[in-house]
Amino acid sequence: MTISIAHLGPRGTYSEQAALAYQSWLATQHPEETVLEVYPSILQVIQAAATNEVGLAIAPIENSIEGSVGITLDALWQLDSLRIQQALVLPIRHTLITHAQDCKGIQTIYSHPQALGQCQQWIAQHCPAVTLIPTRSTTESLKHLDDSTTTAAIASEWAANLYDLPVLARGINDQPDNCTKFWILSNTESTEGSHTSLAFSLPVNAPGSLLRPLELFSQADINLSRIESRPTKRSLGEYLFFLDLEASLNSPHTQATLNALKECTETLKIFGSYPTIPATATATLPEP
Amino acid sequence: MTISIAHLGPRGTYSEQAALAYQSWLATQHPEETVLEVYPSILQVIQAAATNEVGLAIAPIENSIEGSVGITLDALWQLDSLRIQQALVLPIRHTLITHAQDCKGIQTIYSHPQALGQCQQWIAQHCPAVTLIPTRSTTESLKHLDDSTTTAAIASEWAANLYDLPVLARGINDQPDNCTKFWILSNTESTEGSHTSLAFSLPVNAPGSLLRPLELFSQADINLSRIESRPTKRSLGEYLFFLDLEASLNSPHTQATLNALKECTETLKIFGSYPTIPATATATLPEP
Repeated sequence: MTISIAHLGPRGTYSEQAALAYQSWLATQHPEETVLEVYPSILQVIQAAATNEVGLAIAPIENSIEGSVGITLDALWQLDSLRIQQALVLPIRHTLITHAQDCKGIQTIYSHPQALGQCQQWIAQHCPAVTLIPTRSTTESLKHLDDSTTTAAIASEWAANLYDLPVLARGINDQPDNCTKFWILSNTESTEGSHTSLAFSLPVNAPGSLLRPLELFSQADINLSRIESRPTKRSLGEYLFFLDLEASLNSPHTQATLNALKECTETLKIFGSYPTIPATATATLPEP
Repeated sequence: MTISIAHLGPRGTYSEQAALAYQSWLATQHPEETVLEVYPSILQVIQAAATNEVGLAIAPIENSIEGSVGITLDALWQLDSLRIQQALVLPIRHTLITHAQDCKGIQTIYSHPQALGQCQQWIAQHCPAVTLIPTRSTTESLKHLDDSTTTAAIASEWAANLYDLPVLARGINDQPDNCTKFWILSNTESTEGSHTSLAFSLPVNAPGSLLRPLELFSQADINLSRIESRPTKRSLGEYLFFLDLEASLNSPHTQATLNALKECTETLKIFGSYPTIPATATATLPEP
């Protein structure tokens, strides 16, 4: 049986790179063949898994510079059935792609707004007078490159290789530790792994209402590796809280803590326990 | 003396609408003349106030649907000197702007990705087969309108009036309570007002490290109206926490609580106490 894996397109994005790394890792675990399916938005990627149109979806959840990907959190909250199977952390290494031989003549740089933001110090230093033009994806920026030496794009080296375009500078992101975390989602139960993710809303907006949930975890000696608030979309000032716990659902201790948590939250949704795929799986660039 | 107020351009954006509402309100408080100055990015708006290039900056901080504006939070953390003078809540009411007489023939809708996201149910119902094209601002979407009846843009009614363009449908945002909160920033100390905003980093990533700060506020009976985590940009899993308190710095009780908070945080930055400008100031559309 072939397993289809949905990811954000177009081809050449960091999402595709993450999907390829996941596919390679999965091949070491299971004999089943896998095939990648491209979708035009993160929401459609996630919905494809929720409706069983695909077997798995890979969605970005958090970047070390830009923070959380709200649409992924919102979709998980709304689509009750999905569980996190694995997490995967992809190093993000931006590349300046251009036909120019040096930065001097470059007048315009195209890229996704997040990529432009993550390279702003490098750009200010090397191409101070350029115009920055945002595109919908890093891959789309490559379409704006013609043979001229006045335009450049920022995307991954993988994308440059894929579309056979010349690279002028590598690793131009201002923070060397820039990376993006992805979650692999499907409708299968997941209760094994080092981390558990969940979200809840609170019954009242009063002093200490968030305190009780955090007290529970502290008393249970469960570390939180992440806490994120998202608007409920009902009114300004009402939040959902998304938490990652360093604990597994297969432990009775975690189960007892979550039972107590249920008592002090309005709605509690548990997205499963999962392992993080070893970094070695994402360290090498796939061949185009 | 004329006070200059920086806001995000181009003209016709919701940021300009907020700046105009603020300008009207300020005229009821002070005799000084004010002038609006347009900047091309939120970061440049905030930097203009930090360097005293302008007297005040107005920056979006949070939308009820899309959540926090990370760049404003990050800039406040980095530019130590700025304090919040006031908060202003602008109702967001999206408008379909087109030369078409009805939705049937519309093939393409242009707008800022957040505006497209906030109208997706309306679009799915009324123009199910359209192509959505993101633009850098709601105003920029208006440039793509020609005399044809196959294109449309989503922006505010104020922008349609400003550029003398026809409105086909009003209030097309899926959530009627859609609004955006702005902060007015300057280098002046601010210690009076119903709310206090601050941010901190924590010394260790251990069970209960966020618990202690929240306990302090609970014990002091100070309500948190908002809690938001942002990546420190050092590594994945390290966060800054941005909190809004329902308390004023001019109270000794608040001061004592913040002194205790200083003891259990790594770095603590306090952005001031401020009032929220009454909603009546933002309810009416300015004249173009």
